[in-house]
Amino acid sequence: MAQTTGPADPALISDIVAANRILFDQGVVDGFGHVSVRHDKNPDHFLLARSMAPGLVKAEDIVEHDRDGEAVARHGPVLYLEREIYKAHPRVVAVVHSHSPAVIPFGVTKARLQPIFHLSSFLAEGAPIFEIRDAGGPATDMLIRTPALGAALAQALGAAPVALMRGHGDVVVGRSLREVVFRAVYTEVNARLEGEALRLGQGQVIFLNDQEAANATRTNAGVINRAWELWKAKAITAA
Amino acid sequence: MAQTTGPADPALISDIVAANRILFDQGVVDGFGHVSVRHDKNPDHFLLARSMAPGLVKAEDIVEHDRDGEAVARHGPVLYLEREIYKAHPRVVAVVHSHSPAVIPFGVTKARLQPIFHLSSFLAEGAPIFEIRDAGGPATDMLIRTPALGAALAQALGAAPVALMRGHGDVVVGRSLREVVFRAVYTEVNARLEGEALRLGQGQVIFLNDQEAANATRTNAGVINRAWELWKAKAITAA
Amino acid sequence: MAQTTGPADPALISDIVAANRILFDQGVVDGFGHVSVRHDKNPDHFLLARSMAPGLVKAEDIVEHDRDGEAVARHGPVLYLEREIYKAHPRVVAVVHSHSPAVIPFGVTKARLQPIFHLSSFLAEGAPIFEIRDAGGPATDMLIRTPALGAALAQALGAAPVALMRGHGDVVVGRSLREVVFRAVYTEVNARLEGEALRLGQGQVIFLNDQEAANATRTNAGVINRAWELWKAKAITAA
Amino acid sequence: MAQTTGPADPALISDIVAANRILFDQGVVDGFGHVSVRHDKNPDHFLLARSMAPGLVKAEDIVEHDRDGEAVARHGPVLYLEREIYKAHPRVVAVVHSHSPAVIPFGVTKARLQPIFHLSSFLAEGAPIFEIRDAGGPATDMLIRTPALGAALAQALGAAPVALMRGHGDVVVGRSLREVVFRAVYTEVNARLEGEALRLGQGQVIFLNDQEAANATRTNAGVINRAWELWKAKAITAA
Repeated sequence: MAQTTGPADPALISDIVAANRILFDQGVVDGFGHVSVRHDKNPDHFLLARSMAPGLVKAEDIVEHDRDGEAVARHGPVLYLEREIYKAHPRVVAVVHSHSPAVIPFGVTKARLQPIFHLSSFLAEGAPIFEIRDAGGPATDMLIRTPALGAALAQALGAAPVALMRGHGDVVVGRSLREVVFRAVYTEVNARLEGEALRLGQGQVIFLNDQEAANATRTNAGVINRAWELWKAKAITAA
Repeated sequence: MAQTTGPADPALISDIVAANRILFDQGVVDGFGHVSVRHDKNPDHFLLARSMAPGLVKAEDIVEHDRDGEAVARHGPVLYLEREIYKAHPRVVAVVHSHSPAVIPFGVTKARLQPIFHLSSFLAEGAPIFEIRDAGGPATDMLIRTPALGAALAQALGAAPVALMRGHGDVVVGRSLREVVFRAVYTEVNARLEGEALRLGQGQVIFLNDQEAANATRTNAGVINRAWELWKAKAITAA
Repeated sequence: MAQTTGPADPALISDIVAANRILFDQGVVDGFGHVSVRHDKNPDHFLLARSMAPGLVKAEDIVEHDRDGEAVARHGPVLYLEREIYKAHPRVVAVVHSHSPAVIPFGVTKARLQPIFHLSSFLAEGAPIFEIRDAGGPATDMLIRTPALGAALAQALGAAPVALMRGHGDVVVGRSLREVVFRAVYTEVNARLEGEALRLGQGQVIFLNDQEAANATRTNAGVINRAWELWKAKAITAA
Repeated sequence: MAQTTGPADPALISDIVAANRILFDQGVVDGFGHVSVRHDKNPDHFLLARSMAPGLVKAEDIVEHDRDGEAVARHGPVLYLEREIYKAHPRVVAVVHSHSPAVIPFGVTKARLQPIFHLSSFLAEGAPIFEIRDAGGPATDMLIRTPALGAALAQALGAAPVALMRGHGDVVVGRSLREVVFRAVYTEVNARLEGEALRLGQGQVIFLNDQEAANATRTNAGVINRAWELWKAKAITAA
């Protein structure tokens, strides 16, 4: 069991609790899935709720994990998924893993997730599919069970904001907790709208082009808090 | 900063707060979108909430904007979208801008939004698509950032009650606040029903003809308050 | 203004209030639609809420209508839709008219509403489409505005439990208030399931055959109260 | 009327009440459907609510049934569906019967329910369709009315965790109450996701292979309580 860094900023704890509740209230996570964020006093460590449904998380459930993905303050499963992404991608400050329901069909078919409106413009930076059979062979239990599988997922993600995990769900990364929640919600919304548009247009859909998407992403950075405040108010009331 | 006109009718303030809550409760707006109405004492000015999620708006958040779209009582972003529509179309008394989820797929495909039942008969007056690339080129951030883009949108709208904004959402106009809310809700409902009917009928759907639509629109004018009262009661309870 | 019959059984008033709330809570009616029932002391008269959203109806809103569809206790629009059905079909004790959202697409396409599971077995008795153009020409406002249109609708309905009204909604009839609510809810449910099954099976779907449907309908008569109790508890709590 | 075994463990009663509420809250059952579990003191008997909507069940509504499916403590309909499954399959400890809405279309078409993600991996063990016409002829009322029909359903189920009942619903079995609830919820979720994926991929979908599914099923055994705790908290709050 590693050394604890000392308590994280209470505002960050409060935000990660809110993030758990928001992701449940917005239908991104069900009984499973996690959201984590780098520790504000130690970028090698990250904060994540103990193994429980995100919709029930309280401040006292948030646990510090060291860079090996082991819980510092108590024992728990090693989280290779988060650990390897934080290690491989220093720019990543927060990670959501979920079974986002509208996204799962895009992970098991050839349909490509693309930005259908300005709020999901970040998808233009890529949403590769991680096929666990490539790294783990044909007989895994679909979970990121080993450092090697975690590293393969981190590599498949690359510089993209989202990676789809075939037959499982997806992982979304961001440079802040609020950004990753914004991206996780609009990845799900985009999947819903795109599925409908592909049917309506019989495959012919106009997506944002790369310039539109890059510009919209710059603009959206200024409105993340606005969405966060609504979702938080709604999720906390619903709880 | 322009001169203030003096306080608007408290009943109008109360209605525009209700309109914000209704549009959220009915699923037309999410964290974004706006509803505005001309000031009752100065038709050159309009009322609109400060930049925030419509579902959280209270009376004290309603701000008077002058005909240049600038906030009178405090600083805020200039709203070229609303400004240019109010300027170009004197008949327009109220405007809704939203990312109405069932409508977005109709803005990015060749499927045409048409009146599938009597309550959405106003769609027979047109629901043109505004392609921002035509007016702003291939590298906008998808938003109405300039007076020229606002004017182009107002022109694309023309005499229609609705214009779809490709890759963004839509704008709905009305001769009163309650009419514009009625139209915004039934534009969303129509899109849901039409998407389903097009699949069910494999593209063969009987829509209202122009005479049916015009007659139904005259009739519907008498029932707008009935829907408003339900939606308001529901949205206020839910808040 | 006709003579009043005297007060209806309070239990029937309570049931018709519950029926209004249930139909709203189950998504069959929105701000519009009506449910009516024959007066228990005068089969020529029927009870129906005044013109208002069903989801807001209280006992004091229930109004007695005479056989000409005129409100007995106060003035209101004449309800030719209900009036002509009650006149033409003595077996009909209760009527629901709604814009049931999953049913509307079946009224504007060639897809036929058929019983997909035992609870909607009554659909085997027919669900004809009423095309208002046949009786009213190409320029109605889509509403049942005249006795002749009401009579044409009653004739199109015939012995069926449901008639779809093209571009408008549907009408459901029953031998009791609880039966008509049961049928209205399961007509909507059937439409949802059948739309999905037709897509999944690419048009190849096994429906209940006529014998299965007739037998299931006999069985279902014994379970209508069970569904009613759940829906009532849920709708009253939600109110 | 058979002899009563003596009171079941109060924790089991509490769990079966929670199971009823969860299945309603998660949209698996509506006004109908049942969940039952073997009596903890007598494996020949099973516990099941009296004939009522699962969403309203309280502890005092749970009734002990003997191995002939007759209520021990009071009279009620004989439940051949549950009785024959418990008799034929000693490994079965709990049974859910429902009209799971997303599953019904898979029972009336040639589309096959297959595991689309790790949480529904148990579907790889089979989800056969029970065609009641094979055992009961073309003129049943669709219900399991006789011991012979119950035995035919139990045989169609075989070693599978789920059997689809054409034109009716489905039956799910498990080795514990929590497992059967987990399976019933994820059968419904899988059906929703698979329907969407089949459309998106135009029939081309990558499902879990048999090894992946078997391994995931072993892993999932460890997380059933986590989902149960969330669903229970949510269902009890909603009640």
